[in-house]
Amino acid sequence: MQKKVEVSFSPALFSSYFNDSDCNVVVVDVFRATSAICTAFAHGVERIIPVSSVEEARAYQKEGFMVGAERDGQIVEGFDFGNSPFSYMDEKLKGKTLVLTTTNGTKAINIAKSANQILIGSFLNLKYLADYLIEDEKDVLILCAGWKNRFNLEDTLFAGALVKMLVNSPIMSNLADSAIAASYLFKIAENDLRGFIENSSHRKRLKRLNLEEDINYCLQESILDVIPVFEQNCLINKTALVSI
Amino acid sequence: MQKKVEVSFSPALFSSYFNDSDCNVVVVDVFRATSAICTAFAHGVERIIPVSSVEEARAYQKEGFMVGAERDGQIVEGFDFGNSPFSYMDEKLKGKTLVLTTTNGTKAINIAKSANQILIGSFLNLKYLADYLIEDEKDVLILCAGWKNRFNLEDTLFAGALVKMLVNSPIMSNLADSAIAASYLFKIAENDLRGFIENSSHRKRLKRLNLEEDINYCLQESILDVIPVFEQNCLINKTALVSI
Repeated sequence: MQKKVEVSFSPALFSSYFNDSDCNVVVVDVFRATSAICTAFAHGVERIIPVSSVEEARAYQKEGFMVGAERDGQIVEGFDFGNSPFSYMDEKLKGKTLVLTTTNGTKAINIAKSANQILIGSFLNLKYLADYLIEDEKDVLILCAGWKNRFNLEDTLFAGALVKMLVNSPIMSNLADSAIAASYLFKIAENDLRGFIENSSHRKRLKRLNLEEDINYCLQESILDVIPVFEQNCLINKTALVSI
Repeated sequence: MQKKVEVSFSPALFSSYFNDSDCNVVVVDVFRATSAICTAFAHGVERIIPVSSVEEARAYQKEGFMVGAERDGQIVEGFDFGNSPFSYMDEKLKGKTLVLTTTNGTKAINIAKSANQILIGSFLNLKYLADYLIEDEKDVLILCAGWKNRFNLEDTLFAGALVKMLVNSPIMSNLADSAIAASYLFKIAENDLRGFIENSSHRKRLKRLNLEEDINYCLQESILDVIPVFEQNCLINKTALVSI
């Protein structure tokens, strides 16, 4: 039977799309939470605990965890790092458990908790993730973290890029309207992703914060072979488990 | 100051976008509630009371009102009509007050009630509505009725068509990501709207119900010079007021 591919453009729409706990939910927050998570696992981090509030993050910090906390694009005062992927390339994080809270990304992960399997997507692990989803042959629901529940372009473009790869499999060709729209937008943008999002709201926000390097890094396609999954309240890297 | 143009792709996102009651909210449900409403006013209906539930509609019916009720694309048993625009071209509705409940459209109108001004949009009154919004010089929030809180293509294409007209005014060029996305999608689709939505979910739904004529009618651009607005719990035609 044809598998369904849908995109929820906001965490606030998740419950309107989610009606089968057996589907694969892919959470994406391109700038920058899920790009940072993929990067962390590619650099040997063992486990990431995503929490929704700064208060929860602070409680973990008191217990001695290394904690990343970002709000409105910046590191929250008193924390070790924010959500810049470059912070997670540090050798000393290898084998460690981190705690992370971000404006949109970690909230989206927590909202999707009712799904049997939540996977973390970014341009960085696009191909690896798509191959896994095709192989797994389940319905796919891509959950865009957006910006404070609003639609954003960069997460939608990722959704479109993923849809484009999924429809390579004939079994994955039952596209909902949201998946059709995302794939058209990606088609327009794919030859110049950076140019396309030049006027997007979050791009302007990050420009103000002088995060050009982060933007360029996050828009690279399929450079990391990780599949972060959410299991027992933690993110772990499925790839590492498979290769053990 | 630049006015903001945003699109809420679902009634469930309205509260995430709405933060200034002084903006103009445009509610759209192309197939077929808002197309039917525009058609009714163009044919002389005086007032439409949109209600969210079939129960409310039934209560009005008991009081002697003519009532339209649609669920899942079909007329609800026991009511005078559903949401086919052709039902509203009837001479005997002239000067009358109707009551209407539909799966998505009337719910969206009721959700937007906190706005100072709610206007009804469809391809049928596109140009007339755009001229009014440009003249009014307020922020514009386009609220797509969608399908049971999910994103749909046809309402998004209308949003894109409206954005395209609004940006003719330099004062209206502050586009949110959602408005940018909708206008790109319209750009791809505009030369063959019908072809573009051929694979959309609602299109398939209406096809099953054999509503080809309704589809063709609803996709006609700017053939009606009406501006339905929501005032004191009723829809009335602003055009008629102006011309008096």
